[in-house]
Amino acid sequence: MTQPIIGDAFGEMIRDAWAVHTGIGPRPLAGGRWPRPVIEVIERDDGLINGAPAGHYLSEPSDWRPFDHRAVGLCRGRVLDIGTGAGRAAIELQNREIAVTGLDTSLGAIEVARRRGVRDTVLATVDEFSRASVRYDTFLLLGNNLGLLESPERAPVLLDALSRLAAPGARIVAQGTDPYGTTDPLHVAYHRANRDRGRLGGQLRLRLRYREVATDWFDYLNCSVAELKGLLAGTRWRLQSIDDRDHPYYLAVMELNV
Amino acid sequence: MTQPIIGDAFGEMIRDAWAVHTGIGPRPLAGGRWPRPVIEVIERDDGLINGAPAGHYLSEPSDWRPFDHRAVGLCRGRVLDIGTGAGRAAIELQNREIAVTGLDTSLGAIEVARRRGVRDTVLATVDEFSRASVRYDTFLLLGNNLGLLESPERAPVLLDALSRLAAPGARIVAQGTDPYGTTDPLHVAYHRANRDRGRLGGQLRLRLRYREVATDWFDYLNCSVAELKGLLAGTRWRLQSIDDRDHPYYLAVMELNV
Repeated sequence: MTQPIIGDAFGEMIRDAWAVHTGIGPRPLAGGRWPRPVIEVIERDDGLINGAPAGHYLSEPSDWRPFDHRAVGLCRGRVLDIGTGAGRAAIELQNREIAVTGLDTSLGAIEVARRRGVRDTVLATVDEFSRASVRYDTFLLLGNNLGLLESPERAPVLLDALSRLAAPGARIVAQGTDPYGTTDPLHVAYHRANRDRGRLGGQLRLRLRYREVATDWFDYLNCSVAELKGLLAGTRWRLQSIDDRDHPYYLAVMELNV
Repeated sequence: MTQPIIGDAFGEMIRDAWAVHTGIGPRPLAGGRWPRPVIEVIERDDGLINGAPAGHYLSEPSDWRPFDHRAVGLCRGRVLDIGTGAGRAAIELQNREIAVTGLDTSLGAIEVARRRGVRDTVLATVDEFSRASVRYDTFLLLGNNLGLLESPERAPVLLDALSRLAAPGARIVAQGTDPYGTTDPLHVAYHRANRDRGRLGGQLRLRLRYREVATDWFDYLNCSVAELKGLLAGTRWRLQSIDDRDHPYYLAVMELNV
């Protein structure tokens, strides 16, 4: 089998999802005739594959999960929306007159976010952007993007980059998932295999695929609150609060040490 | 990356889709909390991947595409529903008091079809079943299952097996797709690459994936009507009619030569 092309799979998917949503521009069709739903395909390195409709990246606040609303309510001052995607949170913050920058590494996503009205966007990694002179009061990581901590090796590097972008008193508002409540043998075995090779149990190795395009493989971290505390040790950030009313999903607020 | 397990990916998917549909039994959940849509993932050997919601396998006639209704209307006598899946067509035929056998190679699909009320089912390939002493008046291949002709090498073998199961005057009612109307460069290049290696342009090399399970790779044929005529030459079947009102989809009726 030919391997997929490495590229902006997420952006290609968001572009198509937006075209379907608006009815404008070329849209995916089955047989050139019937609309084809836009599906995000996620592969895990143990052979697991999952598909999920991409529409939630374009969802209105009325369709959000409850913790998304509470996360937006925790934003204050100038906000950096990390992994802004199609900009659903950034648009809501703008509507609330909150200054927000939408950051993403996907060109396709940034283009759609801009077309949807996100005024301030950055196409960069956090590391690249951390050399900028701008400072933020809130770093928002919605859509399970606490996972961008990736690994015990990567987490302190990302957290350090955020501290360089942080105004005094800044906070991180991040949505995570505790992976360890599951009894699904597939996931339990994956967590064990991860630990056997020196990784955190929920340190997922993933890639996204859309049509002929795939991302490179990347780590994405589902960690427990106890693991998160461990990752914060020795960094400039401390855990200020956990909201786990929608367990296993949670919101973590981290504050800059003074 | 670990390869998926080879198994009844289609059946696992149909079982989950049925559990979601009925609300009975274990259902796929995200984080053990929110329902996870059941998505069929299809990989092509050029690296293309597509996901599609699996619900259509359980669809009621009111949600069918127009050619499905016309195909069922072309059934007469005793019907063999080849690739019955979750039995949507077999159930409709039963409701019309038409005798039907649902055949599938997927154990999971057959189990769901039976639970949904399909009375006569067979878990076998057409080749295996062709040694049975029963005879049919109509062979129904819905859901694009003209594709089961697979290849110029396989088509006469399958058609010969059907002729062994055929009552005098039997017909095949099959839904196919003409692949050559597309201008999508990805598909056009695939057709060309196929021809370069001596295959029909629309001779797709596919596998299904669902969670940790995949099928083996198999050929699935999207052919033009002209190509279908070529495949029938030298067999006991002749093309009786083509209904292409929903181009590029079409219904082909083939009749047994006397």
